[in-house]
Amino acid sequence: MTGLVTLADIRAAADRISDTVVRTPLVPFALADPGRPLWIKPESLQPTAAFKLRGAYNKIKQVLPEARKRGIVAHSSGNHARSVAWLAQRLGLRAVIVMPDTAPPNKIDIVRELGAEVVLVPPALRDTHGFVLAERHGYLPVVPFDDPAVVAGQATVGLEIMEDLPDADVVLVPVSGGGLAAGVATAVKALRPRTLVIGVEPALASDAAQSLREGRRVAWEPERTYRTVADGLRTNVLGEVPWEQIRRHLDGIVTVGEEQILDAVRRLALDARLVAEPSGAVTFAAYLAGETTGKHVAILSGGSVNPQLLADVLTEPTRLEALHER
Amino acid sequence: MTGLVTLADIRAAADRISDTVVRTPLVPFALADPGRPLWIKPESLQPTAAFKLRGAYNKIKQVLPEARKRGIVAHSSGNHARSVAWLAQRLGLRAVIVMPDTAPPNKIDIVRELGAEVVLVPPALRDTHGFVLAERHGYLPVVPFDDPAVVAGQATVGLEIMEDLPDADVVLVPVSGGGLAAGVATAVKALRPRTLVIGVEPALASDAAQSLREGRRVAWEPERTYRTVADGLRTNVLGEVPWEQIRRHLDGIVTVGEEQILDAVRRLALDARLVAEPSGAVTFAAYLAGETTGKHVAILSGGSVNPQLLADVLTEPTRLEALHER
Repeated sequence: MTGLVTLADIRAAADRISDTVVRTPLVPFALADPGRPLWIKPESLQPTAAFKLRGAYNKIKQVLPEARKRGIVAHSSGNHARSVAWLAQRLGLRAVIVMPDTAPPNKIDIVRELGAEVVLVPPALRDTHGFVLAERHGYLPVVPFDDPAVVAGQATVGLEIMEDLPDADVVLVPVSGGGLAAGVATAVKALRPRTLVIGVEPALASDAAQSLREGRRVAWEPERTYRTVADGLRTNVLGEVPWEQIRRHLDGIVTVGEEQILDAVRRLALDARLVAEPSGAVTFAAYLAGETTGKHVAILSGGSVNPQLLADVLTEPTRLEALHER
Repeated sequence: MTGLVTLADIRAAADRISDTVVRTPLVPFALADPGRPLWIKPESLQPTAAFKLRGAYNKIKQVLPEARKRGIVAHSSGNHARSVAWLAQRLGLRAVIVMPDTAPPNKIDIVRELGAEVVLVPPALRDTHGFVLAERHGYLPVVPFDDPAVVAGQATVGLEIMEDLPDADVVLVPVSGGGLAAGVATAVKALRPRTLVIGVEPALASDAAQSLREGRRVAWEPERTYRTVADGLRTNVLGEVPWEQIRRHLDGIVTVGEEQILDAVRRLALDARLVAEPSGAVTFAAYLAGETTGKHVAILSGGSVNPQLLADVLTEPTRLEALHER
C-alpha cells in the first residue's frame, strides 16, 4: 500500500537530519544481569529532550519553502510541540502549537519560551483542533505520527541501534501514537529480522496492546489513558501509517505499572546518570521486569521531566505509589 | 624529562581501553548563547559514573599478570575507587581501596558492593596509607593521578573531543589531583595549540590556581579543601607527572562558587538531562559565568551524586546557599 516507509526512506532521513539531530550513543547499563546485558539509547540528549526532533525535522526540511510561506501548526502533549517550536525558531517559521490543557506546565512553558503560539484545548480535541486551525488560517500541519516522513525520521533511532549493536536480540520501544514504534520496528526488521522489537505501554494506557491482540485499532477515551503518570504515552495508535507498520513488524507489546515506571525514573537517574521523564522510562521498567535473554536495547525516548516528580522519586522510593495520584 | 605523556601514548591508550570504555558523545547544549555554543562531554555515562575508568584501565591492562598475582591497592575519594573496584571485579583481581572517612556514603557503598575491601582513613592519610598497605602486603598500587599510564588514559577524553569538534576554541576541565587536566591539556595542545584549555576549581579548593600563579606546587590542608560540596575536587595537584603537564599546557584556571556549582547541577539535570555530581558540574558552572567566545566544550567528569542533594537542588533553587552546609 502507499505510504509504507522503506529502508531507503529511513537512510535518506538519516542523511537529511544529520546536521541538527544528535547521533545518540548506546550507553551500557553497568548493573545489568550478565545473561541479559542492556544498552540504553538516550534520546533525552536531543536538544529538544526527545526523539521527536527526528521526525519533525525530516518532515519540515522537505516542505521548507511552503512552511515559510504558510506557517506551521502541530498538536502534541509536549515533546513533538517542543521539537516543532525549536525548529521553527531556528528556521524562522511561524508556529502554532495545539496542546491538551492537561499537559505538564513545564512542557507548555518551554514551547512558549521558544516563541511559538500555544493553543490549549481539552484532551478530547487535541488531535483534531490543529486541522481546524490549518483549514481556517492556511497553516501547514506537521503531525506527530501519521505521516511517512515523520515515521521515517523516528525510524533513524532503529537504524542507529543496529549500526552500533548489529547483533542486538531485543529492542524495547515505547508506544503512544506509534510513530517511534512503527519506525524502529521497520528499520530493525529490515536489517535483522530475527531481532525482537517489543513495544512498551503503561498498563493504564495500553490501547495498542489491545489493538494488536484484536487485530484492529481500538481507541481508549482520554479519561482512561490520562490516568497514567506517563503523560507522553496517553495517545492512541489511530494513524493509518504507524498502525500498518506496527501490525506488520512489531513482535508484541508488554505493559508496565505506575510504580515500575517511577522506580525506573529513579534508577535511570542514579544508576545510569540519565534524566528520563516517565514516558521515557517505560522501556527500562520493562527490561527490569522482563525475562527475555540476550542483548537488550531500551530506547529512553525523552527526558522532559517535572522537577518535583524527579525530586520525589529520588527521595521517597518506598512511597512511589502515592506519587502519581497528585 | 622522563614520564611526560606524548600523543603517541594517548593514542595507544585509546586503542587499549576501547573494549571497555564508552566513547562518550559531545552533547550540544540547546540553551547556549549563540555567540558561545557549548557541547557537554558526559563522562558520567561511563559504567563507573566517571572518566576515572579510562586511566585506571589503561594502567591495569598493562600490568595485568602482576596485578593478578599481587592484588591491587588504590586510594580515592570515590570515582577512582569505584573504577578500580569495578575493573577488579571484571578481571578477577583482589582489590583494597583506601578512602577518606569523609567520603559520601553512596560512594563507599558502591565500592563495597563491587567486592573490594574498603579501608577508611582520616583525610590527611588518604594519599599515603595505600603505599603503607602495598609495602606491608605486597599489593600493586594503582594510583589516581601521578602515573603516566593514568594520565594517558584520562587524556583520551581530550583526544575524543578534538576528533568530534576539531575547531573547538575553549575546553573546560575540572582540576583536582590533576590527572584529567594534565591529560586533556596535553592531548588538545598536541592537536591544536590555539585551542584554550582552562582548568576549573571550586574557589574553596583552589590550590591549583594558586600553584599555577606562584609557579610552584602549593598544598592546601584537608580542613580547607573539604569545605567545598565538590567532594571529588578536594585533592591537591601534588604529583610530579600531572603538575609538569599542567604547568606546560594548561592556559589558566578559573574558580567557581558553591552556589554556582549547585545551580549547575540543577540546570544540567533539567536543561541537558544529565545527572552530574557537584565535582562534575564545575565546568558547566564556569561556562555559565564565563565570557570567553567561540565553541566551548565542558567536560562533565562524573555523575555519582548523593540522591538527597540532587533532590534538594531540584526543588529548592532559591536556597542553594544552605545546601552545602549539611
